[in-house]
Amino acid sequence: MSGSLTVVGTGPGKAELMTPATRAVLDRASDLVGYGPYLDRIPATRADQQRHASDNRVELDRARHALSLAAAGRQVVVVSGGDPGVFAMASAVFEAVEHGDPAWRTLDIRVEPGVTAMLAAAAEAGAPLGGDFCAISLSDNLKNWSTIERRLNAAADADFVIALYNPASKARPHQLGMALDLLRQVKSGTTPVLFVRAAGTAETKVVAATLATADASVADMRTLVIVGASTTRTVGRWVYTPRSERLT
Amino acid sequence: MSGSLTVVGTGPGKAELMTPATRAVLDRASDLVGYGPYLDRIPATRADQQRHASDNRVELDRARHALSLAAAGRQVVVVSGGDPGVFAMASAVFEAVEHGDPAWRTLDIRVEPGVTAMLAAAAEAGAPLGGDFCAISLSDNLKNWSTIERRLNAAADADFVIALYNPASKARPHQLGMALDLLRQVKSGTTPVLFVRAAGTAETKVVAATLATADASVADMRTLVIVGASTTRTVGRWVYTPRSERLT
Repeated sequence: MSGSLTVVGTGPGKAELMTPATRAVLDRASDLVGYGPYLDRIPATRADQQRHASDNRVELDRARHALSLAAAGRQVVVVSGGDPGVFAMASAVFEAVEHGDPAWRTLDIRVEPGVTAMLAAAAEAGAPLGGDFCAISLSDNLKNWSTIERRLNAAADADFVIALYNPASKARPHQLGMALDLLRQVKSGTTPVLFVRAAGTAETKVVAATLATADASVADMRTLVIVGASTTRTVGRWVYTPRSERLT
Repeated sequence: MSGSLTVVGTGPGKAELMTPATRAVLDRASDLVGYGPYLDRIPATRADQQRHASDNRVELDRARHALSLAAAGRQVVVVSGGDPGVFAMASAVFEAVEHGDPAWRTLDIRVEPGVTAMLAAAAEAGAPLGGDFCAISLSDNLKNWSTIERRLNAAADADFVIALYNPASKARPHQLGMALDLLRQVKSGTTPVLFVRAAGTAETKVVAATLATADASVADMRTLVIVGASTTRTVGRWVYTPRSERLT
């Protein structure tokens, strides 16, 4: 088999945040596989390049399709947003490999890193991720809500900065409010909370709040929420977490 | 004041992992300020561009120097490795702003996101960050070791994947061994552990181990260590964390 499969991320949105390495992989591909809106971000480069757009929420089917194409000798690129290894397609591809055709294990499979949403969101606001931090997806499509609660509690208790991916969707409008209520029981009401919508795109919008005043309805599918640690602070129009916990 | 200050990250090392947005900011700068080895990664573009290289471990002095240059009307870029907001210079810049000349608050200060080391390290190994994860710096130069222990315990208890930055240096040879011993008390010995040296460079090396067999002396300053969650698994030559905790 001479086919290959590379999983890439387009970055948060703007073309200037996609790495040249990812651009080069996209240019060489015979087939692009991905969620339609992510494929739409990629300008057509070659007339002979085939695009296989699919709906969201069919990650495993999409991964299997991509692996089948690679096994048939194609140079396949699976396209995610952000970084492909963070709540995105790379994991689905390896899951498909584990449970699929044993021949898939001999394929040339690679992952290209990218700029994940929380990094773009943090950069828009200052440096809120300046200390130890964690990333939690609030989607309970694939895990139990009790697991999410356990992780939120642990992150609050140990004073991590918390980046919340997938804070809300039409099918899940209440999770973020529940998460913020849980955090309010552990953390100070003055903790900075950032709602960054469409980070790393031309339409970026930052709403800065505190845990006491944060309104969960501000968030939608395109929002990344960052909840500060006890040391996270506001200076001018910026929010940052000092490198040191030994504040002067 | 018409000066500006932008904090950028070069990415993990390879030029192809630096974003075009960061490249454009570097091209426009009148002054580059940073740790010498990071500045050395940037090819000279303009004869009139000044470079201010400094030693490591003087982040706050470097930030103040950059702010002074910007206040004098220069177009300054502060250069970090990786992403500038993750254990890097962005936080030091805002710390300097908070405690420095009030006029600095009126400066045009921006942060450009980049590819942080854990994303490049994860991509080299598969998709180990595929679930909820946290990032902890093992350096106790700026925080107490007890804080690090508390966060390691919380991350293990709540079953996060754990990315360990700054696992070891000549001045701190014992931290990683202590951290792994702590994790061994909570997590299964079969948990995958990855030592990824020089991720995202031409010299990348991945050592895959388990928590039972992991040898802390494998790590040095250029190593990123990833400790899996209970669901993290090995398939072929890859390590990945499934999106779902409901394993089939």
